[in-house]
Amino acid sequence: MASKPDIGFCGLGAMGFGMATHLLKSGYSVTGFDVWKPTLEKFAAAGGTPSTSLSESAKDKTLYVCMVATAQQAQEAIFKDGGILQGLPKGATLILTSTVPSAYAQSVEKELKERGRDDVYFIDAPVSGGAIRAADGTLSIMAGASDAAFQKGQFLLEEMSAPSKLFIVKGGIGAGSNMKMVHQVLAAIQILAVSEGLGFAARLGLNGKVVREAVIGGKAWSWMFENRSVRTLTEEYFPGASAVAIIVKDTGIITSMARLVNFPTPLCTSAEQAYFTGLDRGWTTQDDAGLVRLWTSEPVSSIQSTFSEEVQQEKLNLVTDLLTGIHLVAAAESISFAKHVGLPLPQLYELAVDAAGGSVMFREFGAKFIHILEGKGGDSAKVLESYLAGLRKAVDEAQNIKCPVYLGSSALNVLLQTGPSLDLSSLLKLYTAI
Amino acid sequence: MASKPDIGFCGLGAMGFGMATHLLKSGYSVTGFDVWKPTLEKFAAAGGTPSTSLSESAKDKTLYVCMVATAQQAQEAIFKDGGILQGLPKGATLILTSTVPSAYAQSVEKELKERGRDDVYFIDAPVSGGAIRAADGTLSIMAGASDAAFQKGQFLLEEMSAPSKLFIVKGGIGAGSNMKMVHQVLAAIQILAVSEGLGFAARLGLNGKVVREAVIGGKAWSWMFENRSVRTLTEEYFPGASAVAIIVKDTGIITSMARLVNFPTPLCTSAEQAYFTGLDRGWTTQDDAGLVRLWTSEPVSSIQSTFSEEVQQEKLNLVTDLLTGIHLVAAAESISFAKHVGLPLPQLYELAVDAAGGSVMFREFGAKFIHILEGKGGDSAKVLESYLAGLRKAVDEAQNIKCPVYLGSSALNVLLQTGPSLDLSSLLKLYTAI
Repeated sequence: MASKPDIGFCGLGAMGFGMATHLLKSGYSVTGFDVWKPTLEKFAAAGGTPSTSLSESAKDKTLYVCMVATAQQAQEAIFKDGGILQGLPKGATLILTSTVPSAYAQSVEKELKERGRDDVYFIDAPVSGGAIRAADGTLSIMAGASDAAFQKGQFLLEEMSAPSKLFIVKGGIGAGSNMKMVHQVLAAIQILAVSEGLGFAARLGLNGKVVREAVIGGKAWSWMFENRSVRTLTEEYFPGASAVAIIVKDTGIITSMARLVNFPTPLCTSAEQAYFTGLDRGWTTQDDAGLVRLWTSEPVSSIQSTFSEEVQQEKLNLVTDLLTGIHLVAAAESISFAKHVGLPLPQLYELAVDAAGGSVMFREFGAKFIHILEGKGGDSAKVLESYLAGLRKAVDEAQNIKCPVYLGSSALNVLLQTGPSLDLSSLLKLYTAI
Repeated sequence: MASKPDIGFCGLGAMGFGMATHLLKSGYSVTGFDVWKPTLEKFAAAGGTPSTSLSESAKDKTLYVCMVATAQQAQEAIFKDGGILQGLPKGATLILTSTVPSAYAQSVEKELKERGRDDVYFIDAPVSGGAIRAADGTLSIMAGASDAAFQKGQFLLEEMSAPSKLFIVKGGIGAGSNMKMVHQVLAAIQILAVSEGLGFAARLGLNGKVVREAVIGGKAWSWMFENRSVRTLTEEYFPGASAVAIIVKDTGIITSMARLVNFPTPLCTSAEQAYFTGLDRGWTTQDDAGLVRLWTSEPVSSIQSTFSEEVQQEKLNLVTDLLTGIHLVAAAESISFAKHVGLPLPQLYELAVDAAGGSVMFREFGAKFIHILEGKGGDSAKVLESYLAGLRKAVDEAQNIKCPVYLGSSALNVLLQTGPSLDLSSLLKLYTAI
């Protein structure tokens, strides 16, 4: 068996540290760079080779993974004097796993060529799954590149992802980032939905623990709700596990791309404005599960209800109907966007249904949306009627108690725009030509 | 000349006091009721007859004006034991000038009948124009009623309104309230737009006085901006002239009616969520011009800019493009809603163009929208293109500086939903069948 190649790695944050140390455990020698010294020490303690120079970290490495936070950071790390490219040997493979705009990934490919370095095999491969799966090597990875680049680097993507979670997206550089982007449409909406649901519930007088059980046991379930509500209930926001800044960045990629390609994103846009409000409140580095504080300063797990069982159930139904309606329109927004930018829809479905963007609504309606968007028909009238009715009731009550429901009211407007037919095609047509 | 009839009047708030004292000045004897004693004293000092009993205030009055704040207050004032109806003589005319849901006005008519008092001539006649015009007797009044009721009461409506500002709306009881409601679509959106525009400008580093001049001198002008920005610049919010609670009430009438009749109101809905946030901030009884504090705690008139003239102009253009785009979609939302509930559209145009809902965009596009909604064609492609481009640039920059633009981003999504044709019909079709 051939010995494993040495890997260069840059960006040892929550995700990158897990990915790099997983490669160490898998028997690779990894040279890691980060600007934050304590992380480098931790990396050395885990068996890695720390480096304080980007070009040094890339020297003689035939494979290099760049996992910085933003496109701006990637641009500097790769191309600046003393950056990765300067150290990278001829014919090396560079994998960018950061979540960046697809246009940025394409600009890297172009700049490599302009600088006379098209010997470098470049792979656009954003990841999803969180720090735990990063450390386990079971991430979801959405990758776009040339066949030649995949021949060089695919095995390393396989090391970092779960067996069925490496998605090779057709379309070359940019396709991976676009796939991540449309997945993040679900994330951007559903992260705020966690707080909106629990916040609305708090204003209705419901205890957060009771709400969590009702949501995760039924059709209002989303991966995000199950994941984030744990931290909402314990107020674990400082710093928590996923900063508001991260979803702000991802939402920005979505909505700016949407504006560029003339695609409407009413729900992502509503979420983004609420995220900006969170930044204004000073929560940039705090966990996004703490956005519930836009609705209530009282801990949601300490709310005491004295409702009869019947009344409590009625109130819980309002909350679950709110979330269900939001998740339904979120699925339409994500899948239509994928269609609009030319991504393979079944792959998005396969990827998102079991990932952080997953929800019961996505599972139930995603395949139907795809069927219609691929021109295979299969639509029937009035499907949306019960969801519209449930959502309307929730928004009515939110208005009664003067509680903002940014996403719920946006989703309701989208459903109202479908007109009297209330079928799925009418919903999708609000987003893109079909 | 016949002597003028004695008038009963209930609700001597900012508007009601002006209306009642105007009637005094016009030579009527007016008996006025209010729950707030100091107001009654002021009313007596102005020559009115104060009354501490609703039924007494209505005794022997062949004409009665009810100008309370809400439908709930009206219901109590009219129908409770010791209320107006108890004092009102047979064949009297009751004019409800409060802004209420049309369904409520219709329920009054029904309840009069059920109580065996269909001898009362009832007129549904909400007003618009503010306290100064109320006191001058130059309000806009939108009235619906039977011909018989108008024969009895129209002269009094004429006393309280400007010569060309009494709008007799076809459709009987409820039609006046519906007309007021669709006018308030413009108000609900444009009141928040004042703060969103000045708030965005503040975040861009622009002084509010400079912004005001740029807005009121060009196509971004709205009546609301010219009116409210005076108070924003002087921070005259305590209590100011028009409380947040009032526009929250009116917005609630719009969006709950919209949900009832399956009409989408993306801009009003965005505005409503922001208004709820204002309530959460404790601003219920403060002036709505103070909503700018959702964006900045610094007084907008004290911001010092040191931009070159060119840079300042660029930034001002972002603000005026933001407002222009919002006002354009607001006009579509209002007029489409009027179509959806069956109101005469030219009357809405005539009414709103010179009223509190007025804007350059409404003036320019309102007639075109009506032409299309009445099936007279006259549409041409790409009309929306330049507005979309301007709004897109503004929202791009707002995103760059992480500034929420609730209405601007909603309006942009609506324009993006029109698809590649970018014509006015496509915009209207997002709201209602045409």
